[in-house]
Amino acid sequence: MVLNLLFVGDVVGRPGRRALQRLLPRLIDRHQVDLVVANGENAAAGFGLTRDTMNELLDAGVDVLTTGNHVWDKREICGQIDDFPRVLRPLNYPDGTPGRGSGVFQTSAGYKVGVLNLEGRIFMSALDCPFRAADAAIAELRRETPVILVDIHAEATSEKVAMGHYLDGRVSLVVGTHTHVPTADAMILPGGTAYQTDAGMTGSRDSVIGVRKELVIEKFLTQMPVRFDVAKKDPWLCGVVCRVEMATGRAVAIEQVMERVD
Amino acid sequence: MVLNLLFVGDVVGRPGRRALQRLLPRLIDRHQVDLVVANGENAAAGFGLTRDTMNELLDAGVDVLTTGNHVWDKREICGQIDDFPRVLRPLNYPDGTPGRGSGVFQTSAGYKVGVLNLEGRIFMSALDCPFRAADAAIAELRRETPVILVDIHAEATSEKVAMGHYLDGRVSLVVGTHTHVPTADAMILPGGTAYQTDAGMTGSRDSVIGVRKELVIEKFLTQMPVRFDVAKKDPWLCGVVCRVEMATGRAVAIEQVMERVD
Amino acid sequence: MVLNLLFVGDVVGRPGRRALQRLLPRLIDRHQVDLVVANGENAAAGFGLTRDTMNELLDAGVDVLTTGNHVWDKREICGQIDDFPRVLRPLNYPDGTPGRGSGVFQTSAGYKVGVLNLEGRIFMSALDCPFRAADAAIAELRRETPVILVDIHAEATSEKVAMGHYLDGRVSLVVGTHTHVPTADAMILPGGTAYQTDAGMTGSRDSVIGVRKELVIEKFLTQMPVRFDVAKKDPWLCGVVCRVEMATGRAVAIEQVMERVD
Amino acid sequence: MVLNLLFVGDVVGRPGRRALQRLLPRLIDRHQVDLVVANGENAAAGFGLTRDTMNELLDAGVDVLTTGNHVWDKREICGQIDDFPRVLRPLNYPDGTPGRGSGVFQTSAGYKVGVLNLEGRIFMSALDCPFRAADAAIAELRRETPVILVDIHAEATSEKVAMGHYLDGRVSLVVGTHTHVPTADAMILPGGTAYQTDAGMTGSRDSVIGVRKELVIEKFLTQMPVRFDVAKKDPWLCGVVCRVEMATGRAVAIEQVMERVD
Ligand SMILES: [Fe+2]
Ligand SMILES: [Fe+2]
Ligand SMILES: [Fe+2]
Ligand SMILES: [Fe+2]
Ligand SMILES: [Fe+2]
Ligand SMILES: [Fe+2]
Ligand SMILES: [Fe+2]
Ligand SMILES: [Fe+2]
Repeated sequence: MVLNLLFVGDVVGRPGRRALQRLLPRLIDRHQVDLVVANGENAAAGFGLTRDTMNELLDAGVDVLTTGNHVWDKREICGQIDDFPRVLRPLNYPDGTPGRGSGVFQTSAGYKVGVLNLEGRIFMSALDCPFRAADAAIAELRRETPVILVDIHAEATSEKVAMGHYLDGRVSLVVGTHTHVPTADAMILPGGTAYQTDAGMTGSRDSVIGVRKELVIEKFLTQMPVRFDVAKKDPWLCGVVCRVEMATGRAVAIEQVMERVD
Repeated sequence: MVLNLLFVGDVVGRPGRRALQRLLPRLIDRHQVDLVVANGENAAAGFGLTRDTMNELLDAGVDVLTTGNHVWDKREICGQIDDFPRVLRPLNYPDGTPGRGSGVFQTSAGYKVGVLNLEGRIFMSALDCPFRAADAAIAELRRETPVILVDIHAEATSEKVAMGHYLDGRVSLVVGTHTHVPTADAMILPGGTAYQTDAGMTGSRDSVIGVRKELVIEKFLTQMPVRFDVAKKDPWLCGVVCRVEMATGRAVAIEQVMERVD
Repeated sequence: MVLNLLFVGDVVGRPGRRALQRLLPRLIDRHQVDLVVANGENAAAGFGLTRDTMNELLDAGVDVLTTGNHVWDKREICGQIDDFPRVLRPLNYPDGTPGRGSGVFQTSAGYKVGVLNLEGRIFMSALDCPFRAADAAIAELRRETPVILVDIHAEATSEKVAMGHYLDGRVSLVVGTHTHVPTADAMILPGGTAYQTDAGMTGSRDSVIGVRKELVIEKFLTQMPVRFDVAKKDPWLCGVVCRVEMATGRAVAIEQVMERVD
Repeated sequence: MVLNLLFVGDVVGRPGRRALQRLLPRLIDRHQVDLVVANGENAAAGFGLTRDTMNELLDAGVDVLTTGNHVWDKREICGQIDDFPRVLRPLNYPDGTPGRGSGVFQTSAGYKVGVLNLEGRIFMSALDCPFRAADAAIAELRRETPVILVDIHAEATSEKVAMGHYLDGRVSLVVGTHTHVPTADAMILPGGTAYQTDAGMTGSRDSVIGVRKELVIEKFLTQMPVRFDVAKKDPWLCGVVCRVEMATGRAVAIEQVMERVD
């Protein structure tokens, strides 16, 4: 008996939300998806989330939203995230941070899936150690279910790949987010954990990681402040589908998803 | 009339060099490759290059070696690189740096191909602007040939994708290196330039970006000094093949190469 | 015959501007100052400058304003800086950046003083090399006067100290800014250049580098977004006075200035 | 009844050790010092410590050695530090790190002094939160003595100043290290804690933070690998003397020490 988990990479702005709304039903159907997890840190105009964008994504069929370094970009979320039990922020933020970093969720058929959201530290913020934070959280999640999905939101490939190997055999899927470019390294590690360094993003592909390309080029050329607007053309959904043996939590297959809005 | 260019991602240590030696002949044959460019910054035990490793790679069929931030790790190379006209270092190093950042090379049939090596600045060293450096170099290369391959060695996806769009229509291929993980975004940009964010590496895949995984995990857990040894198991060659229209320099196809040593 | 140059460290917000207005007349008088240069990158509410704050500082007796990484925080300044010939931005910004990085200014007695503004790259933005940029600018300034003041706006002490030694004998004063903490190393280097690693700031000393201390502590503890407000209590003016031999540009004395508003 | 604590900033290489040996006796005498704490992270040729350099400093009259990011540069120290109860490494290193981050030491008259070593995270390694780590350690130290000295080894002034205010009223002295340039802000904070952002270094002042100036300038100009040798000329000892009320742990005076070897 297997569960099919769909993970969707960083949803960027309205074009990303629209792509998800359009493409999710057919993906769920095609892959007989039992649970959908999406990273939503860029859902609101490219920076952070709002009550409305969270609701929009959850209404569109996302079961759990993970996030990352942009989670607090819209500051009102700090006071709202505790009202959204299906929205996670990285676990390894300081004690006392609003929200939570992991949870156990149920598929429509009632099966339990643990979801854990981590953030890397290389070239990123000064957070607690994501490796040690993961140890504790996974031990706890495994009391309820061996089926566990981990979103490691990080810049450096070394930190993400190391996390994959570190958690190999203890979780079902380790998938990276944050760089907005999908990697071509989906694999099942020796211990039975499915892995992909980055899921890629859901949004305009004719862009620089979701932002209008002219603006980012201007930024690099001038080093002046530039307002980053979300790009609209050629929206795609990127992610992975992972088939997991329910009894053991071992991954039996991982498949990359890169789907264009027609 | 088209030229087939093969670019091979960062060759890591002896396992990477062996993989290249084993796999290159059949790739050249299969894709009727006219010119082979490989990034060699990690060729010597994972850090830098030596006279011997450069010769080994050139003897194995590599026509041009590009490099990156690790180029000077073996310090003797500083005094030797000028003896190797087929080895480039990133162009945007300070004036007076040994070696050169671009060159025009010939295929065995005598066709000219320009090769340009750039390094990014986000999360990396304080170098000259790679975008502006590219403008000048490409103008010069184009006086000799419209067929130009660019290796943008950089950490941040934003900088690499921006470089692709910035050079779109002016060069044949922009391919990234440095993260050692191949990306799944090979495409031809609107202006006719082939693009992939990272070629991936050539070396052990059962590793953390080429290094023995236990060592990298230990480093992340302890923050203590750890000696990084090159991993050996499961060597792969990663890269891209790009077909370029000789008369115009426009890319007509780009194909990802990920080949395992049997 | 000597000139007395007063350099005032980063003026932070209204408390900094008020401190400068209050203290500048007596400092000019006490030290018989011939020219006042102040770093104004934090003049407008702690972040950037506006037309009004620039005018306020210039009206208060500042002859030349230098800046740093915060120069564009108030974006309207980008279009205004060229109207303010007495306001400099770091020289080593990319070609085409609004404003200019150096200039020759006159004391009320008609003597010429060159002022050069540089920005470091360690832990800061990706800019052109400040060392090489300085070479060219100083050669040009010295055609008009040997009396030259350099504001090196940088984070790392190594980069600032290295700049002092690099320019020793070619300019009259190298003084650092940006860390907002005055250093205790005022000295005259062997070649005759006066030097101090950081001038310190002009603003509330009962603060964390000018910002309300509770807010900065909250930021460090929570890693959440915190709005930084300028602190008001216990305003000081920090800077240096440098006596320069007009004929040669050699410094004959440097004295640290740390003056409290009574 | 007061205790006089002398803190000596980063001792750099042999010139630093010699300066300390020469100057310490007269400083102890002049200030009637009860306990000497010195930062030794650069004691061995500028990078790390060895068994011999630790013994040399302790024999010279240092009671406690603190360290920082360079602590493990000489790798053998990892296996030796536990043999040196008077050598601390920053407390906020991961659980399981060799050595310890705080301790209670006795003056020759038998009075107890707590010493705590912390490391910042801004522009530095990915460590545990130094603010939270300090809370726990100080609570424990205060069970034995209210006289507590804190060495906050950090790059950013904001992090050091924030630490000073955060610990104000709970410890006797917060003094920064790492930048190797003494700051001119010795003060007693409102809650009774003495504070100085950086103690400065003990070593050659005719240098770039202890390293031969030509080498550092070459590094900045070329971005090539440069071997950093310790500078020898013009050695100084930099630090602070703090007078502390024994019964309460409150500082009654702080005085900067900058002493040149004759
Ligand atoms: Fe993102
Ligand atoms: Fe992110
Ligand atoms: Fe590499
Ligand atoms: Fe690299
Ligand atoms: Fe400032
Ligand atoms: Fe600044
Ligand atoms: Fe140090
Ligand atoms: Fe240090």
